[in-house]
Amino acid sequence: MARRILDANDRMAARNRQKFAASEVFVLNVMSSPGSGKTTTLIRTIEQLKARGVRCAVIVGDICTSNDADRLAATKVPSVQINTDQFGGDCHLGAHVIREALTGLDLDALDLLIVENVGNLVCPAEFDIGEHARVVVFSVTEGEDKPIKYPLMFRVCDAVLLNKVDLLHDLDYDVALAEQNVHAVHPEMPVLRLSATTGEGFEAWLAWLRERVAAGG
Amino acid sequence: MARRILDANDRMAARNRQKFAASEVFVLNVMSSPGSGKTTTLIRTIEQLKARGVRCAVIVGDICTSNDADRLAATKVPSVQINTDQFGGDCHLGAHVIREALTGLDLDALDLLIVENVGNLVCPAEFDIGEHARVVVFSVTEGEDKPIKYPLMFRVCDAVLLNKVDLLHDLDYDVALAEQNVHAVHPEMPVLRLSATTGEGFEAWLAWLRERVAAGG
Repeated sequence: MARRILDANDRMAARNRQKFAASEVFVLNVMSSPGSGKTTTLIRTIEQLKARGVRCAVIVGDICTSNDADRLAATKVPSVQINTDQFGGDCHLGAHVIREALTGLDLDALDLLIVENVGNLVCPAEFDIGEHARVVVFSVTEGEDKPIKYPLMFRVCDAVLLNKVDLLHDLDYDVALAEQNVHAVHPEMPVLRLSATTGEGFEAWLAWLRERVAAGG
Repeated sequence: MARRILDANDRMAARNRQKFAASEVFVLNVMSSPGSGKTTTLIRTIEQLKARGVRCAVIVGDICTSNDADRLAATKVPSVQINTDQFGGDCHLGAHVIREALTGLDLDALDLLIVENVGNLVCPAEFDIGEHARVVVFSVTEGEDKPIKYPLMFRVCDAVLLNKVDLLHDLDYDVALAEQNVHAVHPEMPVLRLSATTGEGFEAWLAWLRERVAAGG
């Protein structure tokens, strides 16, 4: 049963990918634990990309509430909120849910579509949505061992955004150990240290993302 | 299919509950996001309960690694590590997995069995394991809105441990708003503010737990 669901998801993901290619839009899937700072990171990311002429939109997945979409509305880019409680309280965004959300967006008018997934380090890693790149936001308040405890998430992603580095001075946190744990499950994956609150580290992250967007899907 | 899985789980949970009753052991299910501080909270909780003569044991669920069980070993209480990657990388502990773990424990020699669930604010809330009480560890670094974004978890729990309050001075965090959000989904649920790092707030939490254990399952 689980296999059949994943096969059906993969077929829909492939269809999504064709649709993204036809519109030449790059799609980024952003995943993390609840409370790691995805929305704050995306607000700052979108504001800075928009200022540099990158046309963005965002799909926001949550089980309940439109809190994140309401916050992202401040960026004034097109946004679509998905509440998975209509789909049984799903703990991830499936390719078919993304497909439905696309009807609310003009893909031809976009360079970059960002998907903010449901806060969960486990299940979203199993579902391809047709995206071109995946990043995991990993906050320093979560401890250094998450990559080895949730290896699939760190294995399927293309970069780690090590967030909340502004709090490091207050924590007993070993950044080198966190990076070592990332590389134990995904050798050489970039670990970009940043703070969505202060903006520290955003230049390197935006450079990484813009390079990917420029290279295409 | 999901319904059948949940029905089978409920039947096994009922069997677990009978077994716990026969041994007069109280079972606490501890859930949270990854990195909210469950293990640190449990180490301090167990050390203090042990010093007061409460006979404890712990079952620790993770997808991978024995890191948490290794840390809990310092308390010298019996512990059983479950790695769900043997069960397809399950994102929660099911009642049948708990059943298997019980074979490694002498329930008659215990007052309290603590289950540290997989770090996930979504799926574990759906699975009864036969426990008598449930708590969710919710750290102040996760933002105030998690109760309304993950309402099922906060609805099924009996108390919230609002952890990492030692970091409040460094955060723009509104404790009253967090409590309001908890009570929006679960009116009058106790919200116990504490810091597993400094020990602040542990007296109230231990008093709450000991009262439940004394009252029985």
